[in-house]
Amino acid sequence: MAERVDNIGFGNLRLIQDTEEFCYGIDAVILSDFAAKLMRRQDSIADLGTGTGIIPLILSHKTKTGRITGFEVQESSYEKAMRNIEINGLHNRLEFICTNVTEIPDRYFGCFDAVTCNPPYAKGGAAILSAAGPKAIARHEILATLEDFIKAGSLLLRDRGEFFMVHRPSRLVDILTIGRKYRLEAKTMRLVSPREGTQPNIVLVHFVKGGGSELKVMPPLYVYEDDRVYTEDIQSIYERD
Amino acid sequence: MAERVDNIGFGNLRLIQDTEEFCYGIDAVILSDFAAKLMRRQDSIADLGTGTGIIPLILSHKTKTGRITGFEVQESSYEKAMRNIEINGLHNRLEFICTNVTEIPDRYFGCFDAVTCNPPYAKGGAAILSAAGPKAIARHEILATLEDFIKAGSLLLRDRGEFFMVHRPSRLVDILTIGRKYRLEAKTMRLVSPREGTQPNIVLVHFVKGGGSELKVMPPLYVYEDDRVYTEDIQSIYERD
Repeated sequence: MAERVDNIGFGNLRLIQDTEEFCYGIDAVILSDFAAKLMRRQDSIADLGTGTGIIPLILSHKTKTGRITGFEVQESSYEKAMRNIEINGLHNRLEFICTNVTEIPDRYFGCFDAVTCNPPYAKGGAAILSAAGPKAIARHEILATLEDFIKAGSLLLRDRGEFFMVHRPSRLVDILTIGRKYRLEAKTMRLVSPREGTQPNIVLVHFVKGGGSELKVMPPLYVYEDDRVYTEDIQSIYERD
Repeated sequence: MAERVDNIGFGNLRLIQDTEEFCYGIDAVILSDFAAKLMRRQDSIADLGTGTGIIPLILSHKTKTGRITGFEVQESSYEKAMRNIEINGLHNRLEFICTNVTEIPDRYFGCFDAVTCNPPYAKGGAAILSAAGPKAIARHEILATLEDFIKAGSLLLRDRGEFFMVHRPSRLVDILTIGRKYRLEAKTMRLVSPREGTQPNIVLVHFVKGGGSELKVMPPLYVYEDDRVYTEDIQSIYERD
């Protein structure tokens, strides 16, 4: 166990996480900002595969959402997420449920204005399955597939609700076709590259449940100016001067 | 009739087209270059909705392809395409067939290593249908839909053959999902924007028939440095110094 408490900014939010399990990356931060800027109604938000709750925490700061519900299958992460509510005094706005996305109780279906999701990126496989520790489960499709996450998002949303996903561009065809299968139509897409002139390694997609088929592609987002310096866009997402 | 003959570069190729019908745009040029650079086997290429033959002409210059077959539904364009073979002396390498993509004879099926397609971008509609002149047919899905073009591409290709399409990013979900429906898996994608920081208005997609599901997204292509000057990337596609 290598637990630590980080001050993560965003109005002095703090986060308990375990470096031996899984630590959040820039993907979660970029997704939170992408979702916060695009979502229209935001009375209730769900986050699928929430880990220790990084996306709900950032969304509590970047939106006025009354209630954010994070779903997480791993007990060790869920337990930290619950303590993250405590140390940030967010009992009134955040809740976490310990369940696999394939087993979310149907009383939650159709209840949410928006759903966010930063799922495991890597495909599962027998070799990985046999040695599945917390990090592997957070990174690989072991306990739930990409389709399981997208299907759960669709079930949780009300009609015209919005689904926000971050993933690798290599899976884009899967993401868009599976989305359409579950009535989540991609409406906005943004590709993220390490720096100008490089291949994108992150894609953000905004779906509307029951939306019409017209996609808007935003200009790319670049992370670094040069090797070590964040671009102004990224600094503004982190709310740093 | 406002016929003209343009010297279009690419080793002194000349093109007959009619300004009252449809003149090719940068999309056709960018698609030809994208396809020429990515295609592996190129003994035989088909071009769907070839118009007056601009893409086969450019491909005859940018590749060593032995045989390029253009399919065009409009007789007035087909007739100019045939004359474009004459004035460029390309009888040995180019041929044009006057047919709708929905009615291509099955003797052509499975015959091609690569298929290119710059289809009509705009959706059809009853209002447009009633007044369908040559320009409208070239620009709107009147005589054939996006699905008709993609299906024809799949039928024409041998297994592992490659399909190259240019379209509007707004149709990306349709393009990728219809592609998969006809076993054309998107493998490479490139977005094209007028200039840096602007929304892309063109998308290039490279599919492999029977390919595995992993997409590579290239860095964006920008057309203009500022209002009037082409970027180096575009000048190199046009083969200008």
